[in-house]
Amino acid sequence: MASISQSEYPPKLSAEEEHYLLSNVKDWSIAHGLAVRPAPSFVQPLQDPSGVLASTAPVTLFPSVFPRSCFEQGLAIQKAYNELYSAIARDEPWLQSIVEELVGVDDFVAKLWHIHLEVKKEGYVQDVSLGLFRSDYMVHQDSSQARPSSGLKQVEFNTIASSFGGLSSRVSALHKHLLAIDAYPKSTSSIIKEEKLQLSKSASSLAKGLAAAHKAYGSSRTGRPLCVLFVVQDPERNVFDQRHVEYALLEENGVRSFRLPFGETLSHTRLDSDRTLIYTPPNAPAMSYEVTTVYFRAGYSPDDYAKDDDWVARLQLEKSRAIKCPSILTHLAGCKKVQQVLATPHSPHVKRFLADEKVAARVLETFAPIYPLDESEAGQEARKLATDVSTATKYVLKPQREGGGNNVYRKAIPAFLSKLPETQWPAYILMEMIEPPALANAILRNGEVQRGGVICELGVYGVCLWREGRGEGQKGEIVENWEAGYLLRTKGDQSEEGGVAAGFGAVDSCCLVGE
Amino acid sequence: MASISQSEYPPKLSAEEEHYLLSNVKDWSIAHGLAVRPAPSFVQPLQDPSGVLASTAPVTLFPSVFPRSCFEQGLAIQKAYNELYSAIARDEPWLQSIVEELVGVDDFVAKLWHIHLEVKKEGYVQDVSLGLFRSDYMVHQDSSQARPSSGLKQVEFNTIASSFGGLSSRVSALHKHLLAIDAYPKSTSSIIKEEKLQLSKSASSLAKGLAAAHKAYGSSRTGRPLCVLFVVQDPERNVFDQRHVEYALLEENGVRSFRLPFGETLSHTRLDSDRTLIYTPPNAPAMSYEVTTVYFRAGYSPDDYAKDDDWVARLQLEKSRAIKCPSILTHLAGCKKVQQVLATPHSPHVKRFLADEKVAARVLETFAPIYPLDESEAGQEARKLATDVSTATKYVLKPQREGGGNNVYRKAIPAFLSKLPETQWPAYILMEMIEPPALANAILRNGEVQRGGVICELGVYGVCLWREGRGEGQKGEIVENWEAGYLLRTKGDQSEEGGVAAGFGAVDSCCLVGE
Repeated sequence: MASISQSEYPPKLSAEEEHYLLSNVKDWSIAHGLAVRPAPSFVQPLQDPSGVLASTAPVTLFPSVFPRSCFEQGLAIQKAYNELYSAIARDEPWLQSIVEELVGVDDFVAKLWHIHLEVKKEGYVQDVSLGLFRSDYMVHQDSSQARPSSGLKQVEFNTIASSFGGLSSRVSALHKHLLAIDAYPKSTSSIIKEEKLQLSKSASSLAKGLAAAHKAYGSSRTGRPLCVLFVVQDPERNVFDQRHVEYALLEENGVRSFRLPFGETLSHTRLDSDRTLIYTPPNAPAMSYEVTTVYFRAGYSPDDYAKDDDWVARLQLEKSRAIKCPSILTHLAGCKKVQQVLATPHSPHVKRFLADEKVAARVLETFAPIYPLDESEAGQEARKLATDVSTATKYVLKPQREGGGNNVYRKAIPAFLSKLPETQWPAYILMEMIEPPALANAILRNGEVQRGGVICELGVYGVCLWREGRGEGQKGEIVENWEAGYLLRTKGDQSEEGGVAAGFGAVDSCCLVGE
Repeated sequence: MASISQSEYPPKLSAEEEHYLLSNVKDWSIAHGLAVRPAPSFVQPLQDPSGVLASTAPVTLFPSVFPRSCFEQGLAIQKAYNELYSAIARDEPWLQSIVEELVGVDDFVAKLWHIHLEVKKEGYVQDVSLGLFRSDYMVHQDSSQARPSSGLKQVEFNTIASSFGGLSSRVSALHKHLLAIDAYPKSTSSIIKEEKLQLSKSASSLAKGLAAAHKAYGSSRTGRPLCVLFVVQDPERNVFDQRHVEYALLEENGVRSFRLPFGETLSHTRLDSDRTLIYTPPNAPAMSYEVTTVYFRAGYSPDDYAKDDDWVARLQLEKSRAIKCPSILTHLAGCKKVQQVLATPHSPHVKRFLADEKVAARVLETFAPIYPLDESEAGQEARKLATDVSTATKYVLKPQREGGGNNVYRKAIPAFLSKLPETQWPAYILMEMIEPPALANAILRNGEVQRGGVICELGVYGVCLWREGRGEGQKGEIVENWEAGYLLRTKGDQSEEGGVAAGFGAVDSCCLVGE
């Protein structure tokens, strides 16, 4: 990384270079479905009531440079992460201990747990679960050592609705196309080379995961045709991302699927007496399908549960015989608190779930230290770090609640805590800041090009299909486990929050540097 | 066709059926580049100055029913049409006789001919020509016979800038997708069947034609890298149609190409001393390419020649050593007058160009009678037909000028002619109206669904690569000749003019009916 400074990459473009690059980005993206529905601030709904307009998805004009060793580290470790989170999801007593700590703080987590207890009361009827995971990292540059080194540090692990697998495949192909047509100036030729640009197979690979679950479900119990159900938000601006997975599922695997807005679940699904999940498409009420797999692209945020019936809907889906992607326990395994407990210094938990010590050690290496702010030993240590400006500067304070937002950064932490009654401190965790390398890029977003310093986040997708243990003490087994491509998400370094869909940033691809 | 009436197909949809169908059309189309840039009336340029918005191309929601025999007739005859127009383009004396008749009427044709003469003075240096043709037909129902029959009748033959080959491939895939996901109600299942929906391979097949010309050009004479040049209008709302051909040219054939706005030709191209055509990309002025093939997607309309330099530009391209698609003589071979001369009853011309009598007879079958309004024998006959309301009702009066518009239909013809001095009558031709079957469909256009009676026009693409004869009396030879997929264009039967790009109609695909 050291050899590429912000001032050199990406290069400054002449007006003609920029025109050529942009016109190719704009046309190729629409021609290949690298698109989003425009934001209401860009196209008012009244202007396009039926919603036929689309725009280029927010993309970087250049692939971002990314250390090869870190990229390979992320891909190589994904199967271990799949195994870890699958094991956590299968360890109900352990998850219960986590949830119990959160009940006072996070009503959403408490409600999800309650769903699990409700289903458990009647007994689970499906012992297969699917995870389409995404583990998100940043490159962390440790300059405190004599010899500065970089490695991946995990930002978060997504167990539900991991997005951008559809668009990621396309943006990596876009950057390869731009290179092939010489849209990148000659001055970049030592950096952007064909063999250094990394295609992501995510759309295809995630679809293959859904197909594996569909097959594992077995044959129809009711004689109905089988289908996968994409449970989605409505409206969904990022719909093409999801559609690419749907199309790959149909075209490459021959599996039918339907999109069901989460809020309409009770109108169009029902449970048969043996809890087979039946879907009746509103467009063909005389037809019905047996659902093999429920793929949640909604239901992960408290906002998705606007009415009481939405909780009834979640319960109905969880009770059903369909394979869930993810199951409610897998959803809970992705909560922030789990990450914190695993990443608390000297935590014994990872070893509980990963039998192979070497594998566990490689996973542990990717954790940035995270402390509780409670009265435990680690919590006491954290309180010292957080209330002293000289140490707080290395940390970020995050609410335990799911859903992001409201983080407090670095020097602002001591003042924030001093105003907060100590009884409320346990509602937060303290995480060591990841210090990513200084990079620059140009982002096309809503038709505007924004240039400047950026922060890149590598997401690695994983597919994991497993079977619960039947009976007390049985751990179950993993049936399928693979790494499923990657996402590079890049945002301006002015915002400390991330997320292309939320309005900050762009999809990107990796141009590897270093050995 | 008789078994399907307008009232039965396409079916009326429930609100839920329409919602399912439309949401799938809107998402699939953008995900697969079946798109156009929005009309200024839909999205004002100020709202999207950099042009990132796109919308679903105007498409029919259902494939239109089309007689299998007519579809097969159109595809089967395309190679003969390629041969015919290639032979015409190689017969300069014959073309000259046509052009001479037009000089007083059509300044544009006169100027194109002048370009030919200019090049001829210096001598042509490239004896290979490429045609990417499209022959457009309607199904004609002849109810005057005891047993009504249907067959194809030609509307026009396009020798330059034949469009929609890129989108046509996609709309046929869209309709197949909609069938696969049960977006068509069960009531259509006897009509819309997988094996009756016809995919069009046009994007790929036209690109293969360009690649064949590129290869026929031979190796570089200047040591520069080789390229194909797409000469285009700017701005171009139908850009994705062209881009799909460009991407297929690169991805399936490994051939680089550039888009050059016709009006900028002189700024970015020049002739080497041996008339090699050199293109310098504005984004990389230090680089230059040797152009193997000039593919005109502009230059076919007088509007494209706004300034004198545009004629200089056309001359420069025609003079060059690059293979032209089409050459200026091939462009002229596509003029309306040629079609009229070929299709005048008892015309000997087709047989002049097609040696095989059976082939010539099959081509002749697809002509609707076209008469000149001059003082020839056929012209006298036409004058009688056109001035009598009872016979005029079967005809359309078209100006000889290129560019369309201003047609006079049926009963309006006698009154129109009565106001026109007879000396001006030869500026028009009289064409027998094609009587297409009454069909209905629904068209999605700018977000609105329009339903009603429609007229379908089948376009069949053809690729033809030939070599001029060297020396007096040598006829040259065809090197490549293939049928290259199809287009179905459908418009509301309220408008008598056609053309999706011009704002009337939609791209469609064929659902075959009959034996």
